[in-house]
Amino acid sequence: MVKIPVVENILSANERIAAENERTLDDSGVLAVNIMSSPGAGKTSLIGSTIMALTNHTRVGVIEGDVASRIDADYIESLGVPVVQINTGSACHLDANMVQLALAQLPLHDLDLLFIENVGNLICPTAFALGERLKVMISSVPEGDDKPYKYPAMFAAVDGVVVNKIDLLPHLEFGMEGFRNLIEGLNPGVQFFQISCKNGEGIQGWLDWLLSKLTKEPLRATM
Amino acid sequence: MVKIPVVENILSANERIAAENERTLDDSGVLAVNIMSSPGAGKTSLIGSTIMALTNHTRVGVIEGDVASRIDADYIESLGVPVVQINTGSACHLDANMVQLALAQLPLHDLDLLFIENVGNLICPTAFALGERLKVMISSVPEGDDKPYKYPAMFAAVDGVVVNKIDLLPHLEFGMEGFRNLIEGLNPGVQFFQISCKNGEGIQGWLDWLLSKLTKEPLRATM
Repeated sequence: MVKIPVVENILSANERIAAENERTLDDSGVLAVNIMSSPGAGKTSLIGSTIMALTNHTRVGVIEGDVASRIDADYIESLGVPVVQINTGSACHLDANMVQLALAQLPLHDLDLLFIENVGNLICPTAFALGERLKVMISSVPEGDDKPYKYPAMFAAVDGVVVNKIDLLPHLEFGMEGFRNLIEGLNPGVQFFQISCKNGEGIQGWLDWLLSKLTKEPLRATM
Repeated sequence: MVKIPVVENILSANERIAAENERTLDDSGVLAVNIMSSPGAGKTSLIGSTIMALTNHTRVGVIEGDVASRIDADYIESLGVPVVQINTGSACHLDANMVQLALAQLPLHDLDLLFIENVGNLICPTAFALGERLKVMISSVPEGDDKPYKYPAMFAAVDGVVVNKIDLLPHLEFGMEGFRNLIEGLNPGVQFFQISCKNGEGIQGWLDWLLSKLTKEPLRATM
């Protein structure tokens, strides 16, 4: 009798702060994308590849969420874009309050696109809105093609699924068509991308989709 | 002021039930092993390979934990051993109470070894004792060699680390020695196994360690 109301209160407090974040981001014309996946599926690699591809015409910022360490933030910083690291301690997901604190440290008016890299976890991040416009998950080939059966809430909640590490397909048993059908059954209309952050295959389709979602016209490079 | 005591109460209730589970398992002479990893690292594959290797002399049972689905339990059942599936719904880890309900459905007196396959998650399962004697985590090569930095609590909490999918090493950048040093820094004395569930490489060392931990003499096959 006690526990459920407590959870509801936490979630509704989170929704309220997420709505504030959404307004803050909209006021600055920033498209925020919540990137979720299992540990090691390639969130930081995808963000890094995207930053490198968009250099010169789209201004990107990053919020890095990890239980511990700042190695991802250090890598992103080396690419020359603004980044804030959130260490969640024992928490298994980002919440809107953490993101609100991070937003205050970013030059939002100078950004077009903000990646929020969630904690590596296929379960808990789904329940916590952050104020993002798009939710994207990465599912990597070595994790196996049965993941939509096991983590349906995540696959159902997102606007896009990026299948990463397709360069490993020759070395693994992975039924891409069945995998895609499963996801589209859970989430009709979801965007589906097959990419390799390692060799760049398939990245262009992902970039085109992302750019089509920007809320302000990005700066175009003169060259 | 409210939230921390609530969490403490939940955890101490869990500890109490875990201690009951431990007694139940000890009374039946069953070695319980809590298997944890990211989604898709190979928990079910390792359990399956172990069952097949120990057939005829060690009686194995399995508790399968998943957010949703029973495909892992169906696979384990096809190997001819007793299995109970726990679907946690939205919960991101097994707890001692769930395991207690599952233990009641297993023929414990006819088992030597019980695998408890946790939900695929590198964070939350660490905090919840289940009544197990051994905690083992699987870290698969495609997840990358930086995982101990990001999920230190899991790497520090376990008795053994199994590095799975070493057959993929030729196709990935993975510094095994640095990875092992990191883990041994977090967890001196931890057992470290390098295996491939796909081709069987390295499985024997894992089996030998497991058999050395059995609390009752397993039935030896006559052949």
